[in-house]
This record gives sequence, structure tokens and C-alpha cells, in this order.
Amino acid sequence: MPEFYLPLSLVDDLIRAAIEEDLGAGDLTTLATVGPHVVGEGEIVAREAGIVAGLPVAARVFHVVEPALRFEAAVRDSDHVAAGAQVARVVGPVRGILSAERVALNFLQHLSGIASRTGRFVELVAGSGVRILDTRKTIPGMRLLAKYAVRCGGGANHRFGLSDGILIKDNHIAAAGSVTTAVQRARRFAPHLARIEVEAERLAQVEEALAAGAEAILLDNMPLDRLREAVALCRGRALTEASGGITEENVRAVAETGVDFISIGALTHSSRALDLSLELRLVGP
Amino acid sequence: MPEFYLPLSLVDDLIRAAIEEDLGAGDLTTLATVGPHVVGEGEIVAREAGIVAGLPVAARVFHVVEPALRFEAAVRDSDHVAAGAQVARVVGPVRGILSAERVALNFLQHLSGIASRTGRFVELVAGSGVRILDTRKTIPGMRLLAKYAVRCGGGANHRFGLSDGILIKDNHIAAAGSVTTAVQRARRFAPHLARIEVEAERLAQVEEALAAGAEAILLDNMPLDRLREAVALCRGRALTEASGGITEENVRAVAETGVDFISIGALTHSSRALDLSLELRLVGP
Amino acid sequence: MPEFYLPLSLVDDLIRAAIEEDLGAGDLTTLATVGPHVVGEGEIVAREAGIVAGLPVAARVFHVVEPALRFEAAVRDSDHVAAGAQVARVVGPVRGILSAERVALNFLQHLSGIASRTGRFVELVAGSGVRILDTRKTIPGMRLLAKYAVRCGGGANHRFGLSDGILIKDNHIAAAGSVTTAVQRARRFAPHLARIEVEAERLAQVEEALAAGAEAILLDNMPLDRLREAVALCRGRALTEASGGITEENVRAVAETGVDFISIGALTHSSRALDLSLELRLVGP
Amino acid sequence: MPEFYLPLSLVDDLIRAAIEEDLGAGDLTTLATVGPHVVGEGEIVAREAGIVAGLPVAARVFHVVEPALRFEAAVRDSDHVAAGAQVARVVGPVRGILSAERVALNFLQHLSGIASRTGRFVELVAGSGVRILDTRKTIPGMRLLAKYAVRCGGGANHRFGLSDGILIKDNHIAAAGSVTTAVQRARRFAPHLARIEVEAERLAQVEEALAAGAEAILLDNMPLDRLREAVALCRGRALTEASGGITEENVRAVAETGVDFISIGALTHSSRALDLSLELRLVGP
Amino acid sequence: MPEFYLPLSLVDDLIRAAIEEDLGAGDLTTLATVGPHVVGEGEIVAREAGIVAGLPVAARVFHVVEPALRFEAAVRDSDHVAAGAQVARVVGPVRGILSAERVALNFLQHLSGIASRTGRFVELVAGSGVRILDTRKTIPGMRLLAKYAVRCGGGANHRFGLSDGILIKDNHIAAAGSVTTAVQRARRFAPHLARIEVEAERLAQVEEALAAGAEAILLDNMPLDRLREAVALCRGRALTEASGGITEENVRAVAETGVDFISIGALTHSSRALDLSLELRLVGP
Amino acid sequence: MPEFYLPLSLVDDLIRAAIEEDLGAGDLTTLATVGPHVVGEGEIVAREAGIVAGLPVAARVFHVVEPALRFEAAVRDSDHVAAGAQVARVVGPVRGILSAERVALNFLQHLSGIASRTGRFVELVAGSGVRILDTRKTIPGMRLLAKYAVRCGGGANHRFGLSDGILIKDNHIAAAGSVTTAVQRARRFAPHLARIEVEAERLAQVEEALAAGAEAILLDNMPLDRLREAVALCRGRALTEASGGITEENVRAVAETGVDFISIGALTHSSRALDLSLELRLVGP
Repeated sequence: MPEFYLPLSLVDDLIRAAIEEDLGAGDLTTLATVGPHVVGEGEIVAREAGIVAGLPVAARVFHVVEPALRFEAAVRDSDHVAAGAQVARVVGPVRGILSAERVALNFLQHLSGIASRTGRFVELVAGSGVRILDTRKTIPGMRLLAKYAVRCGGGANHRFGLSDGILIKDNHIAAAGSVTTAVQRARRFAPHLARIEVEAERLAQVEEALAAGAEAILLDNMPLDRLREAVALCRGRALTEASGGITEENVRAVAETGVDFISIGALTHSSRALDLSLELRLVGP
Repeated sequence: MPEFYLPLSLVDDLIRAAIEEDLGAGDLTTLATVGPHVVGEGEIVAREAGIVAGLPVAARVFHVVEPALRFEAAVRDSDHVAAGAQVARVVGPVRGILSAERVALNFLQHLSGIASRTGRFVELVAGSGVRILDTRKTIPGMRLLAKYAVRCGGGANHRFGLSDGILIKDNHIAAAGSVTTAVQRARRFAPHLARIEVEAERLAQVEEALAAGAEAILLDNMPLDRLREAVALCRGRALTEASGGITEENVRAVAETGVDFISIGALTHSSRALDLSLELRLVGP
Repeated sequence: MPEFYLPLSLVDDLIRAAIEEDLGAGDLTTLATVGPHVVGEGEIVAREAGIVAGLPVAARVFHVVEPALRFEAAVRDSDHVAAGAQVARVVGPVRGILSAERVALNFLQHLSGIASRTGRFVELVAGSGVRILDTRKTIPGMRLLAKYAVRCGGGANHRFGLSDGILIKDNHIAAAGSVTTAVQRARRFAPHLARIEVEAERLAQVEEALAAGAEAILLDNMPLDRLREAVALCRGRALTEASGGITEENVRAVAETGVDFISIGALTHSSRALDLSLELRLVGP
Repeated sequence: MPEFYLPLSLVDDLIRAAIEEDLGAGDLTTLATVGPHVVGEGEIVAREAGIVAGLPVAARVFHVVEPALRFEAAVRDSDHVAAGAQVARVVGPVRGILSAERVALNFLQHLSGIASRTGRFVELVAGSGVRILDTRKTIPGMRLLAKYAVRCGGGANHRFGLSDGILIKDNHIAAAGSVTTAVQRARRFAPHLARIEVEAERLAQVEEALAAGAEAILLDNMPLDRLREAVALCRGRALTEASGGITEENVRAVAETGVDFISIGALTHSSRALDLSLELRLVGP
Repeated sequence: MPEFYLPLSLVDDLIRAAIEEDLGAGDLTTLATVGPHVVGEGEIVAREAGIVAGLPVAARVFHVVEPALRFEAAVRDSDHVAAGAQVARVVGPVRGILSAERVALNFLQHLSGIASRTGRFVELVAGSGVRILDTRKTIPGMRLLAKYAVRCGGGANHRFGLSDGILIKDNHIAAAGSVTTAVQRARRFAPHLARIEVEAERLAQVEEALAAGAEAILLDNMPLDRLREAVALCRGRALTEASGGITEENVRAVAETGVDFISIGALTHSSRALDLSLELRLVGP
Repeated sequence: MPEFYLPLSLVDDLIRAAIEEDLGAGDLTTLATVGPHVVGEGEIVAREAGIVAGLPVAARVFHVVEPALRFEAAVRDSDHVAAGAQVARVVGPVRGILSAERVALNFLQHLSGIASRTGRFVELVAGSGVRILDTRKTIPGMRLLAKYAVRCGGGANHRFGLSDGILIKDNHIAAAGSVTTAVQRARRFAPHLARIEVEAERLAQVEEALAAGAEAILLDNMPLDRLREAVALCRGRALTEASGGITEENVRAVAETGVDFISIGALTHSSRALDLSLELRLVGP
């Protein structure tokens, strides 16, 4: 399952920044109340059902705060867990567990929230052949992890950022003068491995984009019947992506228009955190 | 209104990281389709009502990407805006506007989402004298901005991190052996300007914490009647903070128990982005 | 000419690192021998013909070292200059000019060297319709600037790095088991805006890759006749890129096989610096 | 052989930056086509003869990308290798090998290119007693590694940067008013452990510099006969360094003038990469 | 003894910066004179009596410079050592010991100097119940370590910085208009876990601050008799902190006025380094 | 006066770190009590006589915290000021003045303390021709600024770090086997612009070092008569530097032995901060 690979060295700076912003000059309460030799076991438990994402990040947080801690995941990223299920255990000095707990959970709850929400959309379109995509509407600093969480939830990634894909929107077309000019300029400027996608709101724009050689069309905020017509126009000529106003209520209907992809900004900009908690048991000394 | 001050130099690294993760090696589509001398005006518009937060951050994003852009806020952070209202304008090279747009909106929508949600809670408890607080449950890297947005929404901030306040939870008590020992150790270790707060779930714990000298009690997940009793116990002896399971439905009832503060993790870990968009008009050359 | 846009904020860290490694604890010789009020004018001159690249970087170096300096480019990046031509002038405190000179020239000479070499290859294939591409064989830390310099020289950029394009090489095929499996997996995993390129050394591999749906074929180290056959196979079905062993001597012949692109690692890993010098004239005080 | 020591902690930031610029958001092709458990052995082989430099850097790159990889050097930095010789082996997860390969080779090829070129110059002056020096004309960001590679090639290092040596050039002399003033000021300002070198193009300048107390003279761009006269003037009074226009063709003749040092900017600003490749063999699972 | 905990990950950047500023491009003398295989044992010895602080930092410095070194502390931070006592041993490659020695000692001597000076003040007030506090007058970059050293010396920490405590000084009062307004604003703005302290020079100010609800009063530069009166006024109503002009000569008298705390800027801005040295013994090879 | 030049871009990271460690999440007291439009004038005054150093750093601190502040130095670095003298003024938003005050003063007081102490030593040896030197015994992170402050005080700098000068100590000699071997190896390894200094405690060592070609001798901890003999031995053959146990009481006597330099670690590791304060006057709004 190659999708669930997470290159930790690329998020190390964020992990350290998150620890610094929480630890500040040190965890006063824990230093005051917990002796340096107290050992315990923390169990991370799901308080609601969902899809887990971010375990390697949580493991890393505990390790950076206290290298003596041992982290053991009970499930793997992309696994569904039931309410009450154990997600992971962390064993060692209690000072470390308590000082790292909040940052580790903040990562894990946010990413699992994204994965779980993605998973609900993926399930709603099951069997339709449609793939659920994310967007660039991510919370600043979290792009790589947010897109990883979308994959854990069964979704696929749209382009990572502005430099690895061409998506010509209405403003680009206006500035270029016409769709045709915009596509030609993009073809000439873009790396040859980049496909060109064009945004369209009306059918006339879809036709113009196809004529200009667009390889994918972003069908923006179209009502269902217009969407169906657009898909028919594009068939065999360009990939189709529906976007704008997608909810859990209408996603199935959109999928049944025959589009190839549905992209949903809310996956990453408005997902609710998954409810997880850490329960501690003292073991010694 | 001193609450709405935002020390930008403290978030400059995050702003640059956010720009880098979106721009990558450059905005291919814009470079390809928009000439370097095309000038325009982008209008940021609210597509739903809410409270705005993050305008100085958005201004900074546009400035870092293209110093020639001029950003003018139409409202101020903490202002309520109606659906359709203009929030800001940015004027200058269209390349810069388009390359910075998404990052600027990602900040503005996320922070305004937090402010708006906070504002709804604040309104729901209006007149009760209760203050709405945030928690440390923030999205990694966003702590300072998230807490700023809470203030913009009319809420107040709990401690910033682990080093600027003492909050003794059940695990600290377990490790220390008793509430009394935990509070004594904290009193001895903590800076003298830090008040000591103790978490309690049951009334017996509240009494024990008060006896130990706690200056604030976090009343965790208590049903309303227990909450009322706890508040009565604490009156004149300690501040009271209700926490756990607070929703827009029950917040008023909780406020009417007489607690001083209500803290809500969801303000910062699960707020929906406020719907904002940037509409571009070409002006030249 | 959008190709010659350089987002300076993305290379600011490199510029500062370069200044730090040269300045160390300060320019002892200049501080000792040149008074703080001596003013002069430095003229950057080409000592051989070539294509200039990196002027905004050089300007930035002088500015960071001494904000009081005024930098005026006499030509623009991508311009051809003759031996003896003035490239730029920098006016102000002589201390600043001398302390920044070497770092500014190191950038400018290296980037202009890449642009000039690229320009020679571009000229050699003029009229063939072939585009000259760079590779990922760049000097560590210089990727963004090196690829910018290639564009200044009239070349085009291959993918920027491993995350913005799919290029399936022999090792990927071996690990996947077959070209077909590799392409299918890539199609499923890659963003929908990424085209898939497959490396092939023999004609059978070309055919297999085409059958698997490759959209571009990298024809690796093929003799001219085999290259011609491969191009014939691919016509209308996939883009073709010749690579391996390209020199100024054979590039024309390779271009005449009808390939779409020729990629040359030496553009960025082995270009000779363009010979530039800074000549100083004291003006005051 | 103390010269070949490389303090890796000083180049860790560059190594991480190089990995980030290549990996971006992850190695899409490898993640798509190679399973996480595939194990292999990569052999780094010299495709041409030369001197190796940078093995500890390459080892570090593989380690940062994938800590499970085991890197074994077959030779040591500064060793001569023949075409076809094995340089190193790296064993472990194939994903890690493929994702790190290009960055590791980019370092190794560039540094070995510098070492090999230096080695050719060193060999050409063998027996003359002359030492080959580098300059500050290095590719930005690479100074420390480039100078290390020069030592691996048998050369010696000139000063590292502007703060660890005094080299008075014509512009410093002009600003100071005379060689004598410049040398006196430098003597007073410089640390007492710094020797003072003065640049001279004509014999009169050499004499003036010697009279002023220069401990080394940089003989800039002198024809051979003038060089011989300058060396005679300096004998027993100052070290001599020839610089400017040195090629593999004329370096022997320059060395035979009796100078102590010959410094060559091209060693670090224009060396060709040494041709190395990584050949992969799958071993499991 | 929880006070002596030092979260090393929070000072790692400073440790690396300190190593870089000393090592520069490498330890020339050691590389030149000491072979790579020479092994030795360095003993860190106190040349005067004092309190040790910073051993984990010193250990970390040796480790970063040369991971093969083994560091063994002979005492623990906060321990008193006599003149001549062994403080720590470091065993391994002599190159590493010599290259890291100065940076390790610079940390250890500075921090032990702070701890030792703090210890003298603590001893002078022994039995009085007064706690010795530090201030924000720390050497830039060293705040966290300096405050740790104060704790090692038996002192306690005042607030860490401007965001974790409210201390209203004369300028704040002037800007707010009155003590009462200032305290009210602070009460409303500050986190509820922050106590409010007000600075006062005269008794009238003390009374006004108490009336305004200040929970602690900083008695600034008061003569002893006024201090006694101020303490009497505050008893049972607010904590008292004496500050300004405290020396080893007058600290006992100040303590005997009955104040709760005495804060001393000189602990961190003017402490003399403790005299420590490293003595090396070659062991092999 | 070239000595007093300070390349601010090289200390920008330290300045930002110092601001961050003090400001944390914001200056709570100031934000609470001072309105955003209150304007004032802060006067930095010397409360004791001394030599000023660090004004450009203080200016930079105020600028980074609040760009609207205007900083005007009343004296220049290296100037002597009397007790009560104005050092600088800063005018603008009071919030900015108060939030930046402590960090600016921390720099200015520490650096002026170093300069003032250096100045006393320089004065004590006035007329002797001896130069007062610093060492590498600096507080971590402050090396560049500390050495700048020494120059402001009239002292000179020893080498900046381990890579810009050769100083062979007893341990190097032990590892090399003999002084002669150590000097030869250093001569061969070191850049040709580096002079070689050897540490000696006894006269026999001085003679051996001279014979080996040392260009400077560090006379370590020698009693006065031995120092005189050593100076006699070295005259005309090597520079002499006295070090170890130098105090304000004995420095004149040491200077009169005829040594060229006296180096004093305490200048930078144990200087007392100069007593400066900022007095604020409200001007508006």
C-alpha cells in the first residue's frame, strides 16, 4: 500500500516547531509534580470511530521530547478503528509522556479527522469509479501531512502546489486573452510531464478548452444536468473533475454524472478533529 | 482594543513556510499565462457572514510574494462582516496576486473560521458574565495565530503553552500521590506569578483541591447539577472553568451554572473555514 | 518573456548562506584598508561572450551586504553579451562593493555559465523544433537557480524534482515486475495532472511502454539509427526525449532524428563559469 | 592523512536542503512502483578514472533519506579509481536507495570532479615543490565541501573566506592611497596570526609591497619572464603565489618559475563532474 | 529534584550555533597535529569551588562534534564542587575532544558561574524563608539556560518572558493613566492563570496597587525602612518582591525585612565564569 | 575608525532569537495596559561611566519589534560616556518601545560591559606599546558581537575561531610527539596566510618552539621574571603573547616585560554589564 508512506525528514521542522510552541521553556506542571523516575504507560484510544492517520508523526513527537519513550502503534495509518479501540501505546518516563501528549494528539486528531472525512466521501461514491481529490486549501504549514491524510482516507491528491501542475482558471484566461492563448502558452512553458487542466463554468467554455487541447477540465460549480452534458462532451478527449459546493449529501449524485474526479476543499480546510485521548497508567517505580 | 494586536515578526517563519509549500519552484500556470506587466485589482469578499481575523497575515503574504502589491483592508480584525461584504483589496501585478492568493486565503479563512465560531459561543453566553476560553488543542504550528483569532472572536486565551501556567490534571495528581502534594510541589516550583489550577471531575476532588490551595478549578465533563454544586463550593475561593463536551446547544445552560470560564477545544481544532473568495479585475497595462 | 521570472524569496536562504560562508566574521582586508565613507562605482564586465543569468541574485547579494548600494543592470537575464560588454553597475560605499563582490560574481558567473552553455546547444538545434531540457543533475542547493539559468539560455525544464513528474526507469520496472505493472501503478498513484514517462534503451522496451500507456518515452543512450526507429514507433502516441552522451558535436544529429526533446545533464553539472569581472572606480568622498 | 577530515555537522544543513529540493513532497515514481519491503543493493561505480571525494556526504544522504540503509565505501576520499572500479555499496530498502540516489550522486560527482581536476594540476607540477591552491571562486553554498575536495585532490587551501586572511588587492590599495598605507593599516587591524599578502601585477608593485612588509605576494596574470623576475625579488623575503590564466597547458611552466604557490579558480568554479553511476540489484524480499 | 531538568531539544539550535561559530571551517591546529586514530581521556576539573550547571549541555557539545566520544559526569548539575574536584570525563578520539573542548567549557563555565553566584545569595539568606529570583536581564540567546542555572544554584525563576506573567511597571501605569486602570485592563486581558504584579517605589503606590487588586508588589529600590513598611502593608494581601541594588553585602538585611522574594539581575547579566579546565591524557593508539 | 564596523546581517538570527525568547507569544502587560496609538520617547541613559558598544544592535532590535520606531544614537560605539549621559533616543509607539526595551538593553549592557572592561585594561597599559587581546572564551552565540565589543574598547582580536589561525597547545604537542613535528605538520596543513603560534610554559619550550619556526609564542602563566627572559629570547624572532592570570592589578607589570600582546579571557567570559536604563516620556497621542 504505497500511498501511506510518509517521509518524516520532510516534516521534522514542523514537528519541532509544534513541540517548541507547546513546551515553551518547559512543562512546569509536570516538572513540578512528577518525579524524573516515574514510569508509566499511555494508551491512545479512539473515542469515536474513524480512520487513523499520523501515527509516525505522533511517534516522532514522543521521541523528540523524550528519546527514552517506546511507542507502539496498535493499528496502521489508513486503518478504520471503532469507538473504544486502542490506537497506540507509549511506555517510559511519565514526564516525557505528559509533556509530549498534547502535541502528539494534536497531530493525530487533526490528521485522523481529515482521513475520516475523506473516508466518508470515498464510501459515498463507492462503486462509481470516481476518485475523491483534495485541493490546495490546506491549513498553512500542514500541506504535506494533510495530503498524506487524504490518501490514508482513500482519497487521491490533486497537485501539491503551484509548481507541479497546470490549472488554468478564469483569471489566467482573462489575462491571456482567451482559453486558446492560455493553453498554448502553458504548453510551451510547462514541463512536458505536466498535463494541462482548464477550469470551466459553462459548456461553451468546456468546448473551447477541449478545442485548445486541454487534457483535463475542472467543471466548476455546475448543476447536475450541465455536469452530465459536460462529461459527455469530454468523454475520450479529456479527464473531468467536478468541484465546488460538494457535500456528503450531493456527492453521490455528482459521482453518477460520470465525472472522473471530485475535488473537495473542505477535506483539508474544515475537517473536524477525530476524538482521541491518552489514558495513563503508572507502572513504577 | 488591545486584544487584536498581532506581533507579525513572531509568525514570519510560518508565513514563509506556507508560501514555500504552495509556490514550490514557482507558479507555473501564472508565469505561463500572465505577462509580467499585467496589473489588476483583487477584491476579497465574504461569501457568508462571520468575524474576520488574519488581515495583517494576509497582507504580509501578498507583500512577501510580491513587494509591489498594495493591500488595503476594508474592515479590521474582529469586525463582523455580512455575506457579500468586501473584506480587503489588493492592487498591483496580477502575477503576484494570483501566486499569493491561495496562501493568503488559507490563512484568512482558517483564522476567520476560528473567530466566527468563537463569536457564536460568545454571543450564546452574552450577559452571563462568562468568558469563553480556548485550549492547547490547536493545529500544530498555528498556536499563536489560533489564539489571536479566538481573541478576535471575543474569546479569551487560556495559557499559551506548558510553560506559562500550572494546570494539574488527574495524571499529575496520580504521579504526585495526592492533590495536596501536587499543589504544594507546584507552588514551590512555579514562578510566583503563576496561579495554580486543578482539574476535578467529582465534588470530592473539588473540595480537596480547594483545601490544597488551588486558585482555579477546571470542572471537567460535569453534568449541569454537579457543575452548579461545584461552583457553589468554589465561590469566593477559586475561579471555576467548565470544560468537556461543550456545544452550541448546551453552552448557555453551562454558563448559567455560574462558572467563570468555559473552555472549548473545538474552537481551534475543529472550526470550519469561513468562506471567502478573491475576485480579480484586470486594470492594465 | 515569462520564463525569466525568478521568485527571489525562494532563494533568500541560499543567498544569505553564501554571504555568510564568504564573509565569516567580516571582511578583514576591506575593513582595514578602506574607510567607511569611501564611495565608488563598480562595473561588472563580461570578459567573454555569453548569455547572462542571475542579475536579480547579484543585486540581492549587494543589497543584503550593504543596503546603501545601488545596483543597475545594463542588460537583462537571457540577453547575449559580447566580450567587453558592461553587464551591470553598482554604486555606493566601497566597503560594501568589495565585501559583496565575490559572492555576487560567484552566482552570476555560475548561472551565466549554465545559460551560455544551454544557449550553444539551443543554437545548434535551431530550426529542428527540438527543445533542449535540463535534468535533476544539479549542484546541491542550486536546483531552482540552475533551472532558471537553463530557461535564460533558451532551454526548457524537465521536472523540478521527484514529486512533480513520473519518470519510470529500469530499476522501477525491475521492482514492479514489468513495464505494464509499473505504468498501471503510477497511473493509479500519481496526481491526474502528471504525465507518465518511461525510460527505454531498446526498441522492444519502447513498444512495451507504449502499449502500457506511457505518454512520453525517454530514449536512453540509443545510437542514431535506433533513435530514428524509436521516434517512428512513438509518433502520435507519445512524446520522445533523447538522453545520454549528448555533446555539442552530436546534438544536431540527434535532433534530426525527430525527437521532441533532448535532455543534457552537463548543462547543470559541468558548465564552465562565464568569465566576468568587477572593475572599481573610486568616486569620493 | 589529516587533510581528508570532513566535519559533517557543518554541512548537515546543506545536505538536508539538497534532499528537500529533490524529494519535494515525495518520490512519486518510486512510491508508486516499488513496494515498501523490496530490498536491494546499489553499487556506485566510476565510469571514468579520477579521484574520489565526498563519500561521507553520500553516506549521510542515504542515511537521512532512509536510516535503514547500510552504506559501505569501497575506497576512501582522495583515492584514485580506475574506470569501472567500485566506489561504494548501499544495501537496504530499494525505495530509500532510489529516492536518495540522485542527491548522493550529485554531491559525489561534483566533489570528485573537483578532486580529479585538482589532481591533474598537482601531477603536472610534481617534483617542482609548488603547491596548487584553490580560491574563493566557489559555487555558492559549497565552499566548505569544495575546499575539502581540493585537499582530496592533493591541493591546498587558500583562505576560507574574507575573515581568515588578509589579501590586499588593487582596489584596497587605491582606496588606502598606497601599498604602504594599506599594509600598515592591515597590520594594525588584522589578528596577529594573519600573514599579509599583497597583489601585484608589475615588478614595481612587487618591490613596493616587499618594502611595505608584505609576507606574501600574489603575482597576478604575469607573463613567465616577469614572473621569474618577481620570484627573484621575493626570494627570502616573501612567499610567492602565481594566479590568473593558469591552464593544464601552462601550469608546469609557471611552476618552473620558482613560485611557491599557484592558485586556480577553475578548480572550484568550472570543474566537470566525474562520471559515476549507481547500479541496482534487487535482493528480496 | 525536579528543578534540574533541562529539555535539551529546546537548546539544540544554540548548541549548534556555538559549535559553528568556534569550528568555522574546521579546527586547523588539531587536524594538522593530531592523527585521526589518537585516543585520549579529558578530565574536566574545577579550579575553584562552586556549583556546577550545564553538564548535559557539555555532553551534547562533545557528542555533536564527535559522536564517538563518551562523556561521563562525575557530579550532577546543582552539586557543589571543591577546588580541584573532578567534574566530568570525556573519552575517545583526541581530535574530537580538542575541537569541542572550548565550546563545552564556555557553556559549562558560564552556567556554573551563574549557579555559583546564585548559590552565594541563597546561602546568605538561608533560614529567612526568602527566595532568590532571577530577572529577564539575561545575555541574549541564553535565557532558558541561564534560568536553568539559577535553579541549579538554589534560586527560583521569575517569569520566563513577556508572555507568561503580568508585571505592571511605572511606564505601563503612566500610559494607562492610573494603577487602577492598568490592573483592571490587565485582569481583563491576561490569561486567568496569570497573577498580576505591580511595581512600586513609594508607599502610596503600594497602597494604590493593593487597592487595585495586585496580587504581588515589586518593591523597587526601596531603602530598608520603607521596605519594612511596604511588607507590613502587603502582609496577607499580596506577595512582595524586593528588587534593585541588591548585593552580597545587603541581601541579608533586605531578606530580614520580611519580603517573600528578592530578584537580582546580576545573577544572569554579570556573573563571573567558574574556573574550569580540561586536562588531557593520551591513551592510544 | 574601521574597527567599529558591525556587519548586522551576520547577527540577525541572534537578534531574532533574542526577541523571540523574550516576547514569546506577546508582551501581555503592554498589550493590556498601553493603547496602540500611545506615542512616546525613550531615552537610554548611562547610570555609570563606561564605553558604549552595540548601538546598531539595539537599533535593530527596536526596528524588528516595531518598524515604526525611530532610533537615534547620541554617541557612537567606542565612545566614552559619563554617568548620566544620554546614549540614545527612541521615538514612536510606546507599545514597541516597551516590548523591545529589555532585549535592546540586554545587548547594549552586555556589550558595553565588555568594551568598558577592555578599555580599563587598555588604559592600564597605555604607552607600553602592548595590545590587549581577547580569546575564544566567549559566551556561546555571542562570539562575533563580543569580539566587536573588545575592539570598541580599544582591544584587538585574537583569532575568531579554530579555523582562522594556528595555535599549538601542549595537547597538540603531546599528540604530535614534539614541538618540531607539530609545527612542521601545521606549516604543511595550514593556509599559507596563517602564522603559527605555539604555547609555552617554560623557557626550554620557548627555545624549542623558536627553533621549530614558530612565528608567535603564547607565554602561558609565566611569572614576571620568566616572562622577561622569554621575551628576550623571542625578540626579532617571534611575536610574544602573555596569557593566564591577568588582572587589572598585574597587567601593567606584565606589559612592562616587553611582550607584544596580552590576552585576557575574562574580557568576554566575565565582564559585568554596564548599567544603562531606558526612561520613557509619553508624548501623545
